[in-house]
Amino acid sequence: MEITQALALARNAMRISSPNPRVGAILVAPSGQVIGQGYTQQAGGPHAEIVALRDAARQGLDTRGATAYVTLEPCSHHGRTGPCCDALIAAGIKKVVASIADPNPRVSGQGFERLRAAGVEVEVGSGAAESRELNIGFFSRMIRKTPWVRMKIAASLDGKTALLDGTSQWITSEAARADGHAWRARSCAVLTGIGTVLEDNPRLDVRLVESPRQPHLVVVDSRLETPLDAQLFLPGRTLYIYAAHQNDARKAALEARGATVIHLPGPGGKVDLAAMLQDLARREVNELHVEAGHKLNGSLVREGLVDEFVVYLAPKLIGQGRDMASFGPLAHLGDAVPLEFRSTDLLGPDLRIVARIPGRDAF
Amino acid sequence: MEITQALALARNAMRISSPNPRVGAILVAPSGQVIGQGYTQQAGGPHAEIVALRDAARQGLDTRGATAYVTLEPCSHHGRTGPCCDALIAAGIKKVVASIADPNPRVSGQGFERLRAAGVEVEVGSGAAESRELNIGFFSRMIRKTPWVRMKIAASLDGKTALLDGTSQWITSEAARADGHAWRARSCAVLTGIGTVLEDNPRLDVRLVESPRQPHLVVVDSRLETPLDAQLFLPGRTLYIYAAHQNDARKAALEARGATVIHLPGPGGKVDLAAMLQDLARREVNELHVEAGHKLNGSLVREGLVDEFVVYLAPKLIGQGRDMASFGPLAHLGDAVPLEFRSTDLLGPDLRIVARIPGRDAF
Repeated sequence: MEITQALALARNAMRISSPNPRVGAILVAPSGQVIGQGYTQQAGGPHAEIVALRDAARQGLDTRGATAYVTLEPCSHHGRTGPCCDALIAAGIKKVVASIADPNPRVSGQGFERLRAAGVEVEVGSGAAESRELNIGFFSRMIRKTPWVRMKIAASLDGKTALLDGTSQWITSEAARADGHAWRARSCAVLTGIGTVLEDNPRLDVRLVESPRQPHLVVVDSRLETPLDAQLFLPGRTLYIYAAHQNDARKAALEARGATVIHLPGPGGKVDLAAMLQDLARREVNELHVEAGHKLNGSLVREGLVDEFVVYLAPKLIGQGRDMASFGPLAHLGDAVPLEFRSTDLLGPDLRIVARIPGRDAF
Repeated sequence: MEITQALALARNAMRISSPNPRVGAILVAPSGQVIGQGYTQQAGGPHAEIVALRDAARQGLDTRGATAYVTLEPCSHHGRTGPCCDALIAAGIKKVVASIADPNPRVSGQGFERLRAAGVEVEVGSGAAESRELNIGFFSRMIRKTPWVRMKIAASLDGKTALLDGTSQWITSEAARADGHAWRARSCAVLTGIGTVLEDNPRLDVRLVESPRQPHLVVVDSRLETPLDAQLFLPGRTLYIYAAHQNDARKAALEARGATVIHLPGPGGKVDLAAMLQDLARREVNELHVEAGHKLNGSLVREGLVDEFVVYLAPKLIGQGRDMASFGPLAHLGDAVPLEFRSTDLLGPDLRIVARIPGRDAF
């Protein structure tokens, strides 16, 4: 019950806490009264437990003997903020009910240990699956050392993302596009390819929904062809450009525009996409939101780097046009990339399908 | 209330009454007691009203003064059976509540007129939309003089119906395939193209669901290339082959196998598909169920001959492969074929989407 409330609080951190996990906390007095609530703030700001303790303090409520319900193991290390465990102990919290251990193998369990050593009762497991799913990207980065990769595709019912000449604005409705921005907003970074940059000159920022922060942008640009006047150069945005070819002059010019250029050559003169994901995880990217064209989509799918798909199908037929992802041809139907549909929802006239590769979330 | 029951009865005629409409009838005594029920039987068998009157008679119940609830105007003409109006009048029915007038312009309203002339009270309109929708093919044939054309497509999430080499068995699950057979079973005829016949050698009959009758089969086969040993030659099946080229020897051989060969040349050495639909309506095809490959699908879509799509999407990605319908390329996104999604349902692991071209049902 209290954990359900704490999970609801954690969801408030969806577009805020990156790269920190989305965590909620509730403090309940021995009387049963909720005396403090909180969720993770922006990176560098307080964690959920601290916000909840401050909430109680602001109301002049006594936290001694209270139970803290938190959706993730309280931290025991000095990061940008002091350890939450110490704050809970200092506040006289008697019991901590936590959904799940911190997935970071270096710290996992140490928070619980520290609490128990201080005489705090600890109970773990309630709401574990929900908390993990809410933080699938954080868990992925901590355990697999790669981001959770979610590919967004907008297409006609017959699977076409653009006309043959590349025209794609707009296949889906405003409702679907706004929903697409909500998925962007929850990601740590948006990924696209140089093809899309050159054809559509997109900004790929969050505009159609409210968001307190903008995700980073990642461009796969083997030959550093991103135009210096591209719209994607936005003030204050973190921009990573992954290249396969050395070109110091272009690199310097792009970096002068605020980009970080990373040289990661793979086979065939292309960027090493698997290595790029590892690099992005080191750069604290939890959820990577892919909005690219059929070629980069095809490469990512072919290399088995995508975990989840968010597909918007518009009620129309285009016939000949661009595919969702160019890979294959397959030799056997059994070689098709297996998915499972997790949800199907109408958004205005369009259908949104969320699909996941079975087992990909079992890390 | 009674009309809702009569509509439920009418749905029992779904796989039975072709080419007659699906009609249900309920007789209610002045006491409120339901004294007879019925729905249209196989062509040549009794209509719903007659079945309901016989139901009452079999139970020894008095129909005098009763109200008849029927989902379509009772017939006034001598078809394969006597006019239902006369039977209702003879049974002493006092009032007829009918959903909608018979769409056949030659008979529409004459049933109501005949009843009123005999002193029977007539009320029309309750359940009209449902009855019309249940009989969309019959209404289409009577009013537009063409069948209601429903295209069934099984594809991967990325819109591929087969590998590049044509392999398509099986993309969707058994649950989806059984549902596809249910749509076949309600149709008057299944349509396919010579490409599918030569590649897959399908039977295209109803096997995965119970059905008291088999739909006809229609093959678009411009050059009369259907092999004489194709599996589609089934005992007792009505088989129409539409050709664009004269070949008397092939025609004679195919007709010796039980087919009816119809020569309907159009532009470019192809069958005139629009004329074919008119011809099929003359042959009493209400609902035409299309299961064809990307080429014939593309031609039907390009010529604006499809009314409705039943699309099964399997949770998989195929990448390069055969498209749902080959047409275009379009010059503008605004030229895309507009649809509206009418339903989305999971069938086992697959998703079924029923979509209709807006306004196509407003005839």
